[in-house]
Amino acid sequence: MGTPFTLSKGRFEAFSDGVFAIAITLLVLEFHLPALGSAPSHADQVHALAGIWPQYIVYVASFLTIGIMWLNHHAQFRYIEKITHGIVIANLILLLFISFLPFPTEVLAKFGLTNIAVTYYGLVLCAIAVAYNLLHWQIVASDRSIPQSPLAWSVVGLTVYPVATLVAYFFPFIGIALFALLAIFYMLPSNVASAAFRPE
Amino acid sequence: MGTPFTLSKGRFEAFSDGVFAIAITLLVLEFHLPALGSAPSHADQVHALAGIWPQYIVYVASFLTIGIMWLNHHAQFRYIEKITHGIVIANLILLLFISFLPFPTEVLAKFGLTNIAVTYYGLVLCAIAVAYNLLHWQIVASDRSIPQSPLAWSVVGLTVYPVATLVAYFFPFIGIALFALLAIFYMLPSNVASAAFRPE
Amino acid sequence: MGTPFTLSKGRFEAFSDGVFAIAITLLVLEFHLPALGSAPSHADQVHALAGIWPQYIVYVASFLTIGIMWLNHHAQFRYIEKITHGIVIANLILLLFISFLPFPTEVLAKFGLTNIAVTYYGLVLCAIAVAYNLLHWQIVASDRSIPQSPLAWSVVGLTVYPVATLVAYFFPFIGIALFALLAIFYMLPSNVASAAFRPE
Amino acid sequence: MGTPFTLSKGRFEAFSDGVFAIAITLLVLEFHLPALGSAPSHADQVHALAGIWPQYIVYVASFLTIGIMWLNHHAQFRYIEKITHGIVIANLILLLFISFLPFPTEVLAKFGLTNIAVTYYGLVLCAIAVAYNLLHWQIVASDRSIPQSPLAWSVVGLTVYPVATLVAYFFPFIGIALFALLAIFYMLPSNVASAAFRPE
Repeated sequence: MGTPFTLSKGRFEAFSDGVFAIAITLLVLEFHLPALGSAPSHADQVHALAGIWPQYIVYVASFLTIGIMWLNHHAQFRYIEKITHGIVIANLILLLFISFLPFPTEVLAKFGLTNIAVTYYGLVLCAIAVAYNLLHWQIVASDRSIPQSPLAWSVVGLTVYPVATLVAYFFPFIGIALFALLAIFYMLPSNVASAAFRPE
Repeated sequence: MGTPFTLSKGRFEAFSDGVFAIAITLLVLEFHLPALGSAPSHADQVHALAGIWPQYIVYVASFLTIGIMWLNHHAQFRYIEKITHGIVIANLILLLFISFLPFPTEVLAKFGLTNIAVTYYGLVLCAIAVAYNLLHWQIVASDRSIPQSPLAWSVVGLTVYPVATLVAYFFPFIGIALFALLAIFYMLPSNVASAAFRPE
Repeated sequence: MGTPFTLSKGRFEAFSDGVFAIAITLLVLEFHLPALGSAPSHADQVHALAGIWPQYIVYVASFLTIGIMWLNHHAQFRYIEKITHGIVIANLILLLFISFLPFPTEVLAKFGLTNIAVTYYGLVLCAIAVAYNLLHWQIVASDRSIPQSPLAWSVVGLTVYPVATLVAYFFPFIGIALFALLAIFYMLPSNVASAAFRPE
Repeated sequence: MGTPFTLSKGRFEAFSDGVFAIAITLLVLEFHLPALGSAPSHADQVHALAGIWPQYIVYVASFLTIGIMWLNHHAQFRYIEKITHGIVIANLILLLFISFLPFPTEVLAKFGLTNIAVTYYGLVLCAIAVAYNLLHWQIVASDRSIPQSPLAWSVVGLTVYPVATLVAYFFPFIGIALFALLAIFYMLPSNVASAAFRPE
């Protein structure tokens, strides 16, 4: 079919970075204040700003999740020399779910921390975890010299999110706390980029 | 007229990449939940999240369409050495319609999959296809050494979208499925960047 | 005061490109459909989409205006070697008004083509023209070897927008047409980047 | 634990620049016009556009604050050779609060210049000041050869924002003026990047 299609890694990363940066910044648009009458009192205003505390937690959880995914994305792409068709598609699927995260964040802002809203949010996190592993496998498949992430690590990633989502269905408050803790856990020095290629 | 105007290809691509990345990420803002009473029941919430299934399809179709256009844009710019005035204008027209795509996506979210909304969406996809071919022709005209896309390919691109739009007018559900399938079709390994310069 | 502050031109351009790309893409969020009853008829939907024709004109005018400003910004920065404090401030002022453009675009969408809304829009375009010239003068002042834009060109830029704004106050339809035509005029091959440094 | 994790400075800056550029451009979405009846009179429209004057001040204050933070961020990263884990985390925390700024900006647009709204805004500025200093200390800790910002400067930054916030609680109009003046003050030639590493 003639010359193979080769993507420039630089533009590929720039586009992906753009999507990560925009998705993480759009999260703020999903904050919703309760409707207040005209000229709300001092106390009403404080109550409105404090009453949306679940939105603050969700904002932090979503922000850290996208931040972590960006870090890991970055770590994975370090090793890539050649962008294959499989990587292009897997990357687009990952970005599709990353870009989608502001919507479940908004659902949580609108419904509150109901078990449905937190479960819906958790399902999107599960989809991101799957898409991330799909991308990882495509990258490893593209070049045998790239160090593979330990299988155990993938299993962990693909297990904890469904489990946390299941917990969220029954105990939404614990569920959302788990999602925030998972994001913080992945930020620990020993874990950053572990999902990538750190040889054991 | 003195020194000719020369654009840096790097900044030109960075600006275009930015517009593509933002347009693809803004799509999520067009999701609309139906209005629910206060403290909606478990079932109401599930119904609300499942009842917007057409929006999920449209989100995926729009996301993949912008993703494909970015890939092809990238493929086209690989060969360019000199950014001519014609390329600047054609590129701006393409970006204008790409940036516009969130609006027909929102129309679909608001009207539902009516034949008017799907047709409107299809007309914007037709405009993108025309603008993309306009850009391709400007690029080929800028340098005779650039391999021209097979004419047949342009004819296909400029035919399938109007045909799918016509179908959408009468059968909106089939129409939106066609738009999604076309985006997936253009993602197949043999088609990615075919619209660009792969010599036969 | 120790080592002078030196900005990297690359990051400076990247940040500016980002703001331009985002402002141009955010314009689409300012489209507003009229409120329709539930299950609007075929005719109502067509009427809604066609009835917002002034918004399409304003969208194109704003899009081309930001596009032109980006092109000229790019052309001006070609010659810069050293980013002075004056350039930093003038650039930030220009970006402030460019970022602001989606708001008068929204005002036009909400008020319609009233003389107040079009005049308000025109005043923002005047502010952009002033900020652009301010940036140009700072750039020329930073390095005497940079070719200065012909004074006549600055006078034109600083005159046509106020005149068009004055016309808009009395004849809003002619005013908005003038703004669109001015953007198209600046896109002609002989004018692109004329506002920059093309020596005569 | 095998190969250490090393982040590319280029992608790190690109991602940060993206977040800064998006946050600064999203501010415009927080403008809110008061609800007007259909076909508002000439005078009503002028009143609506002029009556939101506090929003203009807040827009400028937020825009300049993010602009200044970007400049200082840029200045700090000049010296970095190695991106440590501490820098990654501190940077993410800074971006979290920068991205959050459009929300207090919207609160001010909705509540008006009430003492609660201005205090809330001020608290977010305090958080940004703390996060910025945290990042600075992480950068200095990463490499002993990096010139440390004079301690006095940090003390100033960590003092003026809380003081201005306290003032804002009692005198909201003076408070918002102080926030705008602080941003302008940090833009003076002698102060730009002082918060960074200018040796004394």
